[in-house]
Amino acid sequence: MRIVVDAMGSDNYPGPDVEGAVLAAREWNDEIILVGDEKRIEAELARHDTGGLLLKVVHADQVIEMTDKPSEVVKGKPDSSMHVGMKLVEADEADAFVSAGNTGGVLAVSTLYAIKRIKGIKRPALSAVFPHLTGQVVAADIGANADCKPDMLVQFGLMASAYAEQVMGVKEPRVALLSNGEEEGKGNSLIHEADPLMRAAKGLNFIGNVEPKEMLSGETDVIVHDGFTGNIMMKSLESGIMLLSKFIDREIRAGAMTSVGGLLAKPAFKRISKIVDPAEIGGARLLGLNGVVIVAHGRSDATAIKNAVRQGREAVQAGLIEAIKDSIAEN
Amino acid sequence: MRIVVDAMGSDNYPGPDVEGAVLAAREWNDEIILVGDEKRIEAELARHDTGGLLLKVVHADQVIEMTDKPSEVVKGKPDSSMHVGMKLVEADEADAFVSAGNTGGVLAVSTLYAIKRIKGIKRPALSAVFPHLTGQVVAADIGANADCKPDMLVQFGLMASAYAEQVMGVKEPRVALLSNGEEEGKGNSLIHEADPLMRAAKGLNFIGNVEPKEMLSGETDVIVHDGFTGNIMMKSLESGIMLLSKFIDREIRAGAMTSVGGLLAKPAFKRISKIVDPAEIGGARLLGLNGVVIVAHGRSDATAIKNAVRQGREAVQAGLIEAIKDSIAEN
Repeated sequence: MRIVVDAMGSDNYPGPDVEGAVLAAREWNDEIILVGDEKRIEAELARHDTGGLLLKVVHADQVIEMTDKPSEVVKGKPDSSMHVGMKLVEADEADAFVSAGNTGGVLAVSTLYAIKRIKGIKRPALSAVFPHLTGQVVAADIGANADCKPDMLVQFGLMASAYAEQVMGVKEPRVALLSNGEEEGKGNSLIHEADPLMRAAKGLNFIGNVEPKEMLSGETDVIVHDGFTGNIMMKSLESGIMLLSKFIDREIRAGAMTSVGGLLAKPAFKRISKIVDPAEIGGARLLGLNGVVIVAHGRSDATAIKNAVRQGREAVQAGLIEAIKDSIAEN
Repeated sequence: MRIVVDAMGSDNYPGPDVEGAVLAAREWNDEIILVGDEKRIEAELARHDTGGLLLKVVHADQVIEMTDKPSEVVKGKPDSSMHVGMKLVEADEADAFVSAGNTGGVLAVSTLYAIKRIKGIKRPALSAVFPHLTGQVVAADIGANADCKPDMLVQFGLMASAYAEQVMGVKEPRVALLSNGEEEGKGNSLIHEADPLMRAAKGLNFIGNVEPKEMLSGETDVIVHDGFTGNIMMKSLESGIMLLSKFIDREIRAGAMTSVGGLLAKPAFKRISKIVDPAEIGGARLLGLNGVVIVAHGRSDATAIKNAVRQGREAVQAGLIEAIKDSIAEN
């Protein structure tokens, strides 16, 4: 297994990116190829014990910053760590690409410069895996495509279903459209038009519409939405969780007895933080490309980068790309 | 103040509806007009101490059930409690209409049969007020219009802004579009097209796009979205809060020490439940009609009904309808 880590990706690059690569190399003994400013990478590597690890450095002259416009970077920064790193995957010199950089940049470079779309794929989708009480749900698209056509939703469903089946081992994953109600007639025109196409898609176990609550009750394995709605859904979920945490913090500190209660309950809160922590959840998968691409949060720490590498290697091991190709070819 | 309460609204009608009306009449000394099956209402009233309360009963022969299709009830059930109750408001025999019934039914009957749209209003919007750490935010539309045109969003902003200013006392309320990012270029085509119209609207303090997190950080007083996105946002927020509560419950019960901590912290959790409890938050306001209409949750208990009455009377006292008329006429 050879995994490229974009050393110039995270908000605080290259520190967290390099440390995450070191942690990953140590944990799985994979070859990790750090791409970016060679001198800065070497300086970071010198701060860690890298003895016996399969770490490689490939130099890239340019950096795609968070503030760069995706439409300008493909041609404007041809020597960026993203360009160089993805070219390694395209040339089969690496198996997966991981970056905590500019999501629009990753999307643009992967679609237009290297790796590129699987034949038949209209638009790649960003996919995330959310934890809930009894398991997990695979969501797509969470932000790559703000405006979608109905047939794009079908492809998102096929790709996320392949992910659930191949990578997570779910048999015949249930696939639902995210909607404002489960009854017939609910949904917007996109949902109404997508419905018959979802029903007609081959190899897709479409179960209809579900609402956010049902999504988190384990009623579906895959949830499909346009990138705008999916992004709002994901961020609203996170915001709800954050709001309640803050209320709890405030109200527990408001009294002596409740403060003691909060201290005693701390191990429980710590376990929960670990479940809902973005660093533990890791990155988003960019589905629909001829290679495994993982996009981690810009604010990723080393743990988040390591977990993104884990997601990359899991997708490679599971043969995700071939599974998506087969599913798209069948439809 | 004379407020109509639909006695046949809630999932468990007429019990919670009648009891809520009694609580409201007792608290504010308003005249509450219960509309619905006279015998069943009288039987419920007999269970409460109604001495000295201004309670009136108006009979209605039919009931719009939760399972009824909104498109069929306007003409199909002309003697429903909604028809009869809204006609009272239209005839100026009452000042506001409150129902925990079929939301689509309320929307259809109010738009097509009685009360009707304010001149110039394209589509009424459902509006809710969310609590957050430092205050509240008024959201519209949360579900009346799944597909929206840009000019509808502008009207939602004007109406919700009038609500924030008149009813909540916010001076020059900040109004934002809910989007998947605050940077230029983010948003879907609806957001892009609405942006210049929002900027051009008279009397609208438009501050641009905000994400769910910023919405709950107090960065805006009003949040505008199409009814599909708004419904998903609201339900995702609620689902995030519910998911975290369940995780906390499970993890606190998982150990003896954390269980004791949970018991000691209970008063804090109780205070929080009260803040995020739908029964305390009350109903949604249907904005854009020639009268005050409040739609409470179907699962409302008596407290939720009472709080919906409170919202109705607050809107009447604040002169909300006139404020909306002025704002729409100006644009």
